[in-house]
Amino acid sequence: MNDTTRFGPAAQAHARMSVTGLRDRYARTRARSLDLAQPLSAEDCCAQSMPDASPVKWHLAHTTWFFETFILESHEPDFRPFMPAFRVLFNSYYNGVGEKHPRPQRGLLTRPPLRDVLLYRMQVDERMQVLFDRLGENESFRMLAELGINHEEQHQELILTDVKHLLWANPLRPAYCDAPVDAVRAAGPMGWIGFEAGLVQVGHEGSSFCFDNEMPRHAEYLQAYSLGSRLVTNGEYLRFVDGGGYRDPNLWLSEGWDWVQANQVQHPIYWERNGEQWQEFTLAGLRPLNPDRPAVHIAYYEDDAYARWAGARLPTEAEWENAAAASGLQQMLGEAWQWTRSSYAAYPGFHPATGAIGEYNGKFMVNQYVLRGGSCATPEGHSRATYRNFFPATARWQFSGVRLARDGSATLLG
Amino acid sequence: MNDTTRFGPAAQAHARMSVTGLRDRYARTRARSLDLAQPLSAEDCCAQSMPDASPVKWHLAHTTWFFETFILESHEPDFRPFMPAFRVLFNSYYNGVGEKHPRPQRGLLTRPPLRDVLLYRMQVDERMQVLFDRLGENESFRMLAELGINHEEQHQELILTDVKHLLWANPLRPAYCDAPVDAVRAAGPMGWIGFEAGLVQVGHEGSSFCFDNEMPRHAEYLQAYSLGSRLVTNGEYLRFVDGGGYRDPNLWLSEGWDWVQANQVQHPIYWERNGEQWQEFTLAGLRPLNPDRPAVHIAYYEDDAYARWAGARLPTEAEWENAAAASGLQQMLGEAWQWTRSSYAAYPGFHPATGAIGEYNGKFMVNQYVLRGGSCATPEGHSRATYRNFFPATARWQFSGVRLARDGSATLLG
Amino acid sequence: MNDTTRFGPAAQAHARMSVTGLRDRYARTRARSLDLAQPLSAEDCCAQSMPDASPVKWHLAHTTWFFETFILESHEPDFRPFMPAFRVLFNSYYNGVGEKHPRPQRGLLTRPPLRDVLLYRMQVDERMQVLFDRLGENESFRMLAELGINHEEQHQELILTDVKHLLWANPLRPAYCDAPVDAVRAAGPMGWIGFEAGLVQVGHEGSSFCFDNEMPRHAEYLQAYSLGSRLVTNGEYLRFVDGGGYRDPNLWLSEGWDWVQANQVQHPIYWERNGEQWQEFTLAGLRPLNPDRPAVHIAYYEDDAYARWAGARLPTEAEWENAAAASGLQQMLGEAWQWTRSSYAAYPGFHPATGAIGEYNGKFMVNQYVLRGGSCATPEGHSRATYRNFFPATARWQFSGVRLARDGSATLLG
Amino acid sequence: MNDTTRFGPAAQAHARMSVTGLRDRYARTRARSLDLAQPLSAEDCCAQSMPDASPVKWHLAHTTWFFETFILESHEPDFRPFMPAFRVLFNSYYNGVGEKHPRPQRGLLTRPPLRDVLLYRMQVDERMQVLFDRLGENESFRMLAELGINHEEQHQELILTDVKHLLWANPLRPAYCDAPVDAVRAAGPMGWIGFEAGLVQVGHEGSSFCFDNEMPRHAEYLQAYSLGSRLVTNGEYLRFVDGGGYRDPNLWLSEGWDWVQANQVQHPIYWERNGEQWQEFTLAGLRPLNPDRPAVHIAYYEDDAYARWAGARLPTEAEWENAAAASGLQQMLGEAWQWTRSSYAAYPGFHPATGAIGEYNGKFMVNQYVLRGGSCATPEGHSRATYRNFFPATARWQFSGVRLARDGSATLLG
Repeated sequence: MNDTTRFGPAAQAHARMSVTGLRDRYARTRARSLDLAQPLSAEDCCAQSMPDASPVKWHLAHTTWFFETFILESHEPDFRPFMPAFRVLFNSYYNGVGEKHPRPQRGLLTRPPLRDVLLYRMQVDERMQVLFDRLGENESFRMLAELGINHEEQHQELILTDVKHLLWANPLRPAYCDAPVDAVRAAGPMGWIGFEAGLVQVGHEGSSFCFDNEMPRHAEYLQAYSLGSRLVTNGEYLRFVDGGGYRDPNLWLSEGWDWVQANQVQHPIYWERNGEQWQEFTLAGLRPLNPDRPAVHIAYYEDDAYARWAGARLPTEAEWENAAAASGLQQMLGEAWQWTRSSYAAYPGFHPATGAIGEYNGKFMVNQYVLRGGSCATPEGHSRATYRNFFPATARWQFSGVRLARDGSATLLG
Repeated sequence: MNDTTRFGPAAQAHARMSVTGLRDRYARTRARSLDLAQPLSAEDCCAQSMPDASPVKWHLAHTTWFFETFILESHEPDFRPFMPAFRVLFNSYYNGVGEKHPRPQRGLLTRPPLRDVLLYRMQVDERMQVLFDRLGENESFRMLAELGINHEEQHQELILTDVKHLLWANPLRPAYCDAPVDAVRAAGPMGWIGFEAGLVQVGHEGSSFCFDNEMPRHAEYLQAYSLGSRLVTNGEYLRFVDGGGYRDPNLWLSEGWDWVQANQVQHPIYWERNGEQWQEFTLAGLRPLNPDRPAVHIAYYEDDAYARWAGARLPTEAEWENAAAASGLQQMLGEAWQWTRSSYAAYPGFHPATGAIGEYNGKFMVNQYVLRGGSCATPEGHSRATYRNFFPATARWQFSGVRLARDGSATLLG
Repeated sequence: MNDTTRFGPAAQAHARMSVTGLRDRYARTRARSLDLAQPLSAEDCCAQSMPDASPVKWHLAHTTWFFETFILESHEPDFRPFMPAFRVLFNSYYNGVGEKHPRPQRGLLTRPPLRDVLLYRMQVDERMQVLFDRLGENESFRMLAELGINHEEQHQELILTDVKHLLWANPLRPAYCDAPVDAVRAAGPMGWIGFEAGLVQVGHEGSSFCFDNEMPRHAEYLQAYSLGSRLVTNGEYLRFVDGGGYRDPNLWLSEGWDWVQANQVQHPIYWERNGEQWQEFTLAGLRPLNPDRPAVHIAYYEDDAYARWAGARLPTEAEWENAAAASGLQQMLGEAWQWTRSSYAAYPGFHPATGAIGEYNGKFMVNQYVLRGGSCATPEGHSRATYRNFFPATARWQFSGVRLARDGSATLLG
Repeated sequence: MNDTTRFGPAAQAHARMSVTGLRDRYARTRARSLDLAQPLSAEDCCAQSMPDASPVKWHLAHTTWFFETFILESHEPDFRPFMPAFRVLFNSYYNGVGEKHPRPQRGLLTRPPLRDVLLYRMQVDERMQVLFDRLGENESFRMLAELGINHEEQHQELILTDVKHLLWANPLRPAYCDAPVDAVRAAGPMGWIGFEAGLVQVGHEGSSFCFDNEMPRHAEYLQAYSLGSRLVTNGEYLRFVDGGGYRDPNLWLSEGWDWVQANQVQHPIYWERNGEQWQEFTLAGLRPLNPDRPAVHIAYYEDDAYARWAGARLPTEAEWENAAAASGLQQMLGEAWQWTRSSYAAYPGFHPATGAIGEYNGKFMVNQYVLRGGSCATPEGHSRATYRNFFPATARWQFSGVRLARDGSATLLG
């Protein structure tokens, strides 16, 4: 089993994507990262608001480090690093690559300055172009290039969520952009879409790119179940808040209740009450809470408690994936990540790649829960039915929302 | 859906067990708890070595509180508590019952003294006898009585594990008993027992008692897999230790490696090196490490790392349960709890009982991993194929061992 | 400089106390420790309610360890320890003696059982008697014997304060004794006793025993000042509480305010409000708060804030000591320890004894504040004018009260 | 007692300093702060390396806030704040002024950007000029202006120490400047300068500015003592390190030893060993350790342990101040702060100013130790004999060195 087959059936796929196509995709992806940093000052790009988040500058450097470390180093005959110290500074978690700068101290890296990181990006981009010319048809190179592109796209989403948290942590509540990223899209009344029991196939299929954790495709047996036809809205979640949902231990997992008590959680992280009116901090600054928008930035604990309060439960990831193509379901893709009750674990037959690249996904398969569907901040191709996002049950700074499920397959339209 | 059906198909079963039988079972269980405390002084029974563990006196009182709260209070016409303050002091985690004494401070309860807890037990036993006379055929009473008995048996195991940890925390390393609880039983060479892919049934069946989390019985689809024919031995685990297993981050889950570093873990908790010789703290004191015994007191993180080192993986709980009756497998029941890679979650269709008793299992279904099989410290009836034990990935003070699994169904006998 | 002169001018003094007198004093002191443990069960004696406090059993053993380590070991020709492990278990903080059992884990020492500690005491007492016979006139022996006696007396006070904290930590709020230890003694109205500026002598003088930190006697220059004629009462302190004293940051030292916020301190530790009535936990259980009694169990931070609220300040230890013999001052000795604003530091010319015994006092001379006067729980001879007690500014479990001071020497009688 | 007399005898002094002189001093001080920030990028100015330190941008804003809050607000007839939110963001610790942004989160304030803080400085400077024109002879204004100037000078020193810590926390170990701030100045061999016992005067005298904590001048009685003729050098301190000073608990205060163990301290914070050679991180980057330079960045705990190892002790602040003018003593002023064994406390007769400005010094008078003498980073006028600096015993990021003392007045020249 080799690396080529590890990260998706990408190898075959690339045979069909031209070298020019891949090179263009690389260029567009790299440019978009810079676009995302455009509204930010060097100061904004340097700060880290919590250990879970990273500075934008760090994201810009780390994604470049990924290409340098996993492609340039092994494919350039006379490889020399842009700067040896970067190997440590911008290594996220790859023990196989060597030492790492401690994650909680990423915000202290005022040096290298932002401009040096931009130079780093430019140089690595130029060197990648040389490799595209020379190795554009080489499968190993193509697989790693596509992985690096997808990796950078994942960090593009994190740039948005991490910046949002940083700006929110500032009492001035500054805006990142003028218009909300998550514009209102219409959704109908809540109903239930039912699915019969049976054996289903789960996992990625076909020749397009996927991450290693989406494979192998395999059979699972599902009991009859139903999914809520759309996401839970702010208005619905507000009734849970106003109804004392955060004060009733019977609604919460035991750990969740401890978390509520210890952190005095009373509502979603970005909500704040201004007199009678609820507001929500968005990338466009503080805005009145829109009752028709999907509730987002919900922790797993909150999601689970809301579902219990609503007489429902969270779906498993297999239920979610099986339903993804079903007609009648709204807001499945690209609206908000949807917690599932499935602990993040290897699919049957999963093996991580050999070498440091094998640390990409596998070593996080404990005490995390799978989210599905992608959000308004998710790069386009990532909002696919088989994509497995994962975060601990306490995570609130992602665009994570609530999809309800329940036992039995009776379809009830709202 | 009512409570009677919630906790096992017990209702039907009891029709077949005579009132005398149930009453005797009650008496034997209650007497055994006292037997377990016999080698201990009042001081031993009062101390708490860590928040995860409880004092023996607390176990003796809490199991009594369970009968008082869930049976006497609802079935005695003129119920009066033995002592009102006990309602709070010996409530473990039932929010539905009211306030609770903080868990980490259980060791400060030098009052009530042990003798008062023994009086508490006697009085509740007498009152239970009256109810057996009056309500011995009543299904609700029978269901709760059997639940209370099983509950007390669960605490009997905890008495042993908690006392072991307390005595180990004492530099004198005192023994609880003369002979090891876990005498050597012969086990053959390690082989692999294979199972073909297919749909299997998981969960409790039949009329005997089970906990609510073992139901409903339901179908799951398994890929082909194999289980190790016996548990991993101390000798095998020692090779992992000596081979640098605790120093190689590539063998560990990311969280597991953080845990190893933060706690400077270098070997199983109860092992200690005395010059050239490894010793193991047992309930009978420090003993030379027996290389043929199953390795126990292994955390999930350690178990997972060992499996990776051995080129294997942990089984899922469905794989384990499906294999439990298979011929060729040794040490499946009553030897050591066996971690599975399955996060503790509700079975499809699971609903907790209404009322406080519904807090028994359901609210712990997050960030815990299922263990199967029972250990040398497990009361007899609990070492059954469908029993689902669960602990966080860091737990080391239980008798938890290592059962390996791998993909594919090739049976290889050692 | 030798040890004999280090701990007080005791050497000369003993020449005047007969061997029989010293031996009797030893016997009475040892017996009193057992008397203090009399109302307690073995369970009570084993538990530790916080790292600052120690179990009674530990106090009984440690005071015995002191005699064994510092006298038997150096004066018995064929010394053998009662039990080698005790050298570590009951060493408090003497690095010169070797390893120590970690202080926060003293409550886990259910073994040795209380009865073995009592045997330990008996054997050491017998061996001490042999030494009294043989070395009763030896100055080094006499100095160490007297030090050991005074050391045990210090621990007698800690037995009472530590037991009080343990029983208070129990929701049953059990009593240690029937009658309050601190019976009401009459005190007059509050006035101010003035002292003129000038050079005064501070420190122990004469031939009676003192600790090394009370010497050398030396000159200090004091500005004119006044002391409150008696201690602040519960009634007075209650006005500070009711007047919002715990909610006004301007009354507090910066660190003190952080402490109030972090611990949500709202009143003295042992006070609790029962509807309209304030109660106070005492060694005789919960009692109505007596407004005429001196306020006790006050932290330095609270004491300082109260003084600021009252338009006064705390005295320095030199001011306190200089005033101790003054007529007109009440409740100076044996009523409640009185915080001074003096950080605990060496007197000019102070040198600790050589060897492990030199760790007795000197190494604690940082970040602690001196208290003077002794309390209702203090053994008789310790309530002397030169005795320097010391605790961190957060300590609340000692019988510490409030003596006010202010600048200027105008005497005003209440 | 009014504010004018609180902060130094400044009022009288100003009568002698012309309005132009004060205005010039203001301008020079303000300009110097900007000069200090000159070598730094906006990123450098925004980051905070630990809660004890503050970002440079924050220092630039807070010193401006001080003039705005304590002068403009009370002296401008139509006062309007530059930006209302700054009142909270740049309040350090004045409860009397209102809310404060949490200190550990100062590094998250990427907004306002550095350029806005520079605009803030410019506007406040312009408004101050108007007041100088209008109120230049007004005593209250002059006193506050001088206080604000001195306050800003204190923060200039913190800019250097905080930047040093930030750059050190970066694995690239970047330099702040080309040449070391602390150039070598010759010092002779170590000797001892003796002082006879007697009554001395301590505290500020005369008409120049001082802080409130330097007053009132008052008498203290000192025993005979000697001071080391110069500071302890790196070479001398290195012998302590190499001689196992950090491994011998007998050299340390009990708290100090706990600190060494908990933080695995093995040498001064900015030292690092590179093979056989010791290096020291300086504002000019990593440099070989100069054995002739005074050891700096020494915590009180280290200082105390070194003194004990050297058979000496630390001086009291009165001893230090009394000696400051003595001939034969070198490196007393402007070389390195010198820990004293004196806990930071009020001088007899001290009263803080009324209002928020009274929080300047008084509320920190607990659990801190006084340092004297000023360092290479200290603005010129602050290195005076009566200046009382203060930090907790753990502080290492200041330029704090070691001045030894001992009992007795025998002068011995090296």
